[in-house]
Amino acid sequence: MPPFEARLQALEDREAIRELIAQYGPLADSGNAEGVAALFAEDGVYAIAGFGEANGRAAIAALITGANHQQLMADGCAHVLGPVAVELDGDTAVARGHSLVLRWTGAAFEVHRVAANRWELKRKLDRWLATRRDNALLQGDAAARALLSPPAVPHRS
Amino acid sequence: MPPFEARLQALEDREAIRELIAQYGPLADSGNAEGVAALFAEDGVYAIAGFGEANGRAAIAALITGANHQQLMADGCAHVLGPVAVELDGDTAVARGHSLVLRWTGAAFEVHRVAANRWELKRKLDRWLATRRDNALLQGDAAARALLSPPAVPHRS
Amino acid sequence: MPPFEARLQALEDREAIRELIAQYGPLADSGNAEGVAALFAEDGVYAIAGFGEANGRAAIAALITGANHQQLMADGCAHVLGPVAVELDGDTAVARGHSLVLRWTGAAFEVHRVAANRWELKRKLDRWLATRRDNALLQGDAAARALLSPPAVPHRS
Repeated sequence: MPPFEARLQALEDREAIRELIAQYGPLADSGNAEGVAALFAEDGVYAIAGFGEANGRAAIAALITGANHQQLMADGCAHVLGPVAVELDGDTAVARGHSLVLRWTGAAFEVHRVAANRWELKRKLDRWLATRRDNALLQGDAAARALLSPPAVPHRS
Repeated sequence: MPPFEARLQALEDREAIRELIAQYGPLADSGNAEGVAALFAEDGVYAIAGFGEANGRAAIAALITGANHQQLMADGCAHVLGPVAVELDGDTAVARGHSLVLRWTGAAFEVHRVAANRWELKRKLDRWLATRRDNALLQGDAAARALLSPPAVPHRS
Repeated sequence: MPPFEARLQALEDREAIRELIAQYGPLADSGNAEGVAALFAEDGVYAIAGFGEANGRAAIAALITGANHQQLMADGCAHVLGPVAVELDGDTAVARGHSLVLRWTGAAFEVHRVAANRWELKRKLDRWLATRRDNALLQGDAAARALLSPPAVPHRS
């Protein structure tokens, strides 16, 4: 690949990864379970510390259609993600960043969740998908903080 | 795969749209009414559910110079936008994302507003401008959530 | 520089600056003092209004290893940055945006700090680094708001 194309491709990869992650909040908060699931690979995993792991798109969609999330939506909620630091490595990538869940209590907006996130992504047929998302509340736990650490060595799939 | 220039243009378009939206918060919180208005087309609309519609740049600037916003600035405020999911379609685009308003009460920072946003944008003489921004509080209202939904069919201007 | 390359370079510059700023929160909240320091030039300055100035990488790293930040991490914290508005000017740039610090009190998440930020950056040997970051709480203070104002004239180094 000529240098120009490689540079363009790297920019497109970073743009596609950022866009994928930017779609999560709007899809979740509009209750679009299929859309959220489609951000993940078919065998993708969404692991929420202290809650469990959703394995595969049907399980991930069920997080959105499930009682917890539906109640949050009925209350009024916003899943707001922070900017992501992205390490690209060919056809795979790791992205790290924060997520907030804000909730309307009926009288005020409260900060319901503040979490660390580590996304693993891969390119599949020209499209980036999440293969795993780890999410853990930042309540002083070292394991949650570790999700935000850059890969110690270049990430290899 | 589209030729180099089309790929470069698409990246520039997305970058310009993201930059435009990233400018909103800093301009609003520094009281730059003209700057906020200039993000919009001359006949641009900023519609805030339950509050009203500002039609055109003068009306949009008046949102910043108005008593509500000036009081917020005097209190201490931050209009923080979440990442935007962007659908590009030639010379038009739709961007969706959250916005938060944080306010200093004199004793603590409170989450004053949590809203859904849908931006419609168009390219005009090589420059992207907002033609409409819809904003609605996420307090359990289905119409607010709907602002975050992706266009059902490819957006056409 | 041929047009294509200049356009590509401008996109890469903006991407590198956004990535640098996106790394700050994850590095800070995972306690990576060296990583945070390495975002800054060797003589970089991190100035926090009402707190003081950290001059140079060792002093900046000491903000992370210091008692205040370590206590925040032990409590549970998130340094979440908003999107940045970026003015590029050749080998220098200015970026403006908000930052939030969320803290777990043991019973709830509180909004601990809401601040305005102005970053000055320069390219050095193909790498962007922060030469200065100014941070000030948004509690009604005009000087804090001014950090969010766009450069009145094109920024020159």
